[in-house]
Amino acid sequence: MTHLVIIGGSDAGISAALRAKELDPSVDVTVVVADAFPNYSVCGLPFLFSGEVKDWRQLAHRTVEELTATDIRLLLEHTAQQINPSQRTVQILDSTGQSHLFHYDRLIIATGATPIRPKIEGIDAPGVYYLRSMADSFALEHHLTHRKPLSAVIVGGGYIGLEMADALTLRGLAVMVLDRSENILKTVDSPLSWIVSAELQRHRVEVVPNVSVEKIISDGKNLTVFGSPNFQELTSLVLIATGIQPETTLAHTAGIKTGKHGAIQVNRRMETNIPGIYAAGDCVETYHRLLPQPTYLPLGTIAHKQGRIAGANAVGYEQEFAGSLGTQVLKVFDLAIARTGLLEPEALDTGYQPLTIETEAWDHKAYYPGAHKLRIRVTGDQRDGRLLGAQIIGHYQAEVAKRIDIFATALFHEMTIAQLSDLNLSYTPPFGSPWDVVQVAAQAWEQSRSERTHDL
Amino acid sequence: MTHLVIIGGSDAGISAALRAKELDPSVDVTVVVADAFPNYSVCGLPFLFSGEVKDWRQLAHRTVEELTATDIRLLLEHTAQQINPSQRTVQILDSTGQSHLFHYDRLIIATGATPIRPKIEGIDAPGVYYLRSMADSFALEHHLTHRKPLSAVIVGGGYIGLEMADALTLRGLAVMVLDRSENILKTVDSPLSWIVSAELQRHRVEVVPNVSVEKIISDGKNLTVFGSPNFQELTSLVLIATGIQPETTLAHTAGIKTGKHGAIQVNRRMETNIPGIYAAGDCVETYHRLLPQPTYLPLGTIAHKQGRIAGANAVGYEQEFAGSLGTQVLKVFDLAIARTGLLEPEALDTGYQPLTIETEAWDHKAYYPGAHKLRIRVTGDQRDGRLLGAQIIGHYQAEVAKRIDIFATALFHEMTIAQLSDLNLSYTPPFGSPWDVVQVAAQAWEQSRSERTHDL
Repeated sequence: MTHLVIIGGSDAGISAALRAKELDPSVDVTVVVADAFPNYSVCGLPFLFSGEVKDWRQLAHRTVEELTATDIRLLLEHTAQQINPSQRTVQILDSTGQSHLFHYDRLIIATGATPIRPKIEGIDAPGVYYLRSMADSFALEHHLTHRKPLSAVIVGGGYIGLEMADALTLRGLAVMVLDRSENILKTVDSPLSWIVSAELQRHRVEVVPNVSVEKIISDGKNLTVFGSPNFQELTSLVLIATGIQPETTLAHTAGIKTGKHGAIQVNRRMETNIPGIYAAGDCVETYHRLLPQPTYLPLGTIAHKQGRIAGANAVGYEQEFAGSLGTQVLKVFDLAIARTGLLEPEALDTGYQPLTIETEAWDHKAYYPGAHKLRIRVTGDQRDGRLLGAQIIGHYQAEVAKRIDIFATALFHEMTIAQLSDLNLSYTPPFGSPWDVVQVAAQAWEQSRSERTHDL
Repeated sequence: MTHLVIIGGSDAGISAALRAKELDPSVDVTVVVADAFPNYSVCGLPFLFSGEVKDWRQLAHRTVEELTATDIRLLLEHTAQQINPSQRTVQILDSTGQSHLFHYDRLIIATGATPIRPKIEGIDAPGVYYLRSMADSFALEHHLTHRKPLSAVIVGGGYIGLEMADALTLRGLAVMVLDRSENILKTVDSPLSWIVSAELQRHRVEVVPNVSVEKIISDGKNLTVFGSPNFQELTSLVLIATGIQPETTLAHTAGIKTGKHGAIQVNRRMETNIPGIYAAGDCVETYHRLLPQPTYLPLGTIAHKQGRIAGANAVGYEQEFAGSLGTQVLKVFDLAIARTGLLEPEALDTGYQPLTIETEAWDHKAYYPGAHKLRIRVTGDQRDGRLLGAQIIGHYQAEVAKRIDIFATALFHEMTIAQLSDLNLSYTPPFGSPWDVVQVAAQAWEQSRSERTHDL
């Protein structure tokens, strides 16, 4: 009997376990889960705080019962301490502090990521929180329930920072978002970032750019956040949301190589440099279809895909991860902000000759009620017209997410922007236009490119 | 100077005119429009009657002023009578009855389609309407405004029939829909058709299947509709919505060949059998990417695409119509119903070995408010796993339209169903799942196919 040990019970680990069992029911699968919450939706945490999700138990993609019914052994509140590749063993600590040695034939490392702790004096003060694990969320919820804070300062204007600005505002707090840079949400171009800032401000979230937080001082009840230049704010709560980094401590014990951003190096079969050991999810480097070098993209969609590939290969298949395109979407108040492929600076760095054109158009025929304007930025290579990326911002009911997916599917197939007009997309006045806005934006890009060519 | 004459001022004709002017501003473009309403959204007509569109003028994709500003000559209320290909002339009747001979270098026929008039005794009785042109809609609106009918019988459960059932119900009429067949909406499989019937009934629309209407008798005020077997209904209004047929009377005067459903035969450059004459839109046969033979698909999306190709080629380009996939979407009350590619019977007829699997899944994470269940039917070839088609039904705010477009884009690229899991689609809990339902449905199809293989 083949013994498959998987370390990590979040998206990548559970996907791997389920896929391995699906393809080979005879394999013995053990998943080592550091806490008591396997297969929880980390992406769902902000919606607990807004009250949109009523019970944290709802955040489980699958319950423990559903998982164990598939004959997967879940070791909850167990921590892997050390991997010994020559013996093919893992040393695992149970919740009572007892150490066990587990043999594996195949091992999958899916240890995920941990929050980046910026160098801020006083960052360990009570009242300063992160949001990555269920434990983090319980701690924050405890503070919100018992201390009833009136305000919060969020350090970092990325996905978690902005989702939590939305959530805590709905919860009744006065929220301030600080960002080191000129613009929040650096996953999109600045003109779209400004629209997100305006949406936050419309909901009374104060957005403060260009602040580097240096110190947090607690008076036992409130916190004062100090930053440069000349920043000082009294608040009842601080949330650090400055990004995450791969958790690779365990991998290092096995001599597993890491690369970009300190993430585990894997090939497209999700194999590490150690035979029999795979890795997947937020702890690994990710193959990107448009980049010559691996990148670091800790996203749930990618963790699921990589886990599925690792699970298949661990039971004898030879599948390859098809690669990421960096497709992502975020909801902030009434806005959806989506993006796939490369931004212009990334495209330039990679040797493309990018041109980005922004188009504004209605999500469906303007004569039908409820039409919303979308802003779409299309990036393509000026030389051959190849699509390189797209960004869309608009109302959350304007099918922004699935429209970026049309671009993502086109990118997957290396379409030119002109070819987007050949796609036979659906149309009825309540949902679109005879040329969908995706195609309208593509045609605007082509028109602009051709005008530039004439000007030369 | 090149003279381009375009006969028809709806989607195909205007698209051709605009594209020709865009690519070659020097070309002289004349568009012959039978009525005073060029570039009107025929697809938008039902929403006038529901009251969702307040003013019929809103239905113009572009106003006459916008069109003439592009230096296109619009001959409104002019009718082309005869084409003489050897002289390259068209005889055109103006609104005063005066005849004019126009020379063309290139001619595009975009005469569209007209409603099918089923063989029903008394079909010309007052109170019996069609809905295809602005004139049709004015006549119907006049009846609704002045006669204030309390009820309507709609003959035909296709797109226009169902949209009008929705619209007239919103308008306050008691609506009955008659269909010759067992199921309405034959563009989707019967399990989805039943859901649409239930939605209609939930809104008090009576759906009567298996009725063949034979006679309509007017008493000067009301109409009695007779059909077999044993059908009789008194109503204040009848709408005939039994489909449309290509309008090719003019094309026949030029010796232009017609084929499937009597539509004009064209190659992928939209050329007819007569040199210098192109045709596009609802009057032509359509190349379908999954079928060996042309089909007849009178849809606005296709008319726009074909018009654009015809317009480019008429000014010297050599572009090919990329083909249709039959992608379409319909809104009926709170439901969106979408479809792309082939249904199982069509796939069988074409020599594929289709398997269709239905999956039910939430449009986004169920823990986030507003989640709706979608039903997705995926059809693929059992031999090689190639995607052949997909159908989705669900709430109109569940991104059904753009989800079918992901399938349509996958079909365009001849993906296998297994490859859909490789697509890097977007995810955030309010809009989707780590595997989008599109991928969940694809994985269910693969699982089912593999179980069947094991059973053999």
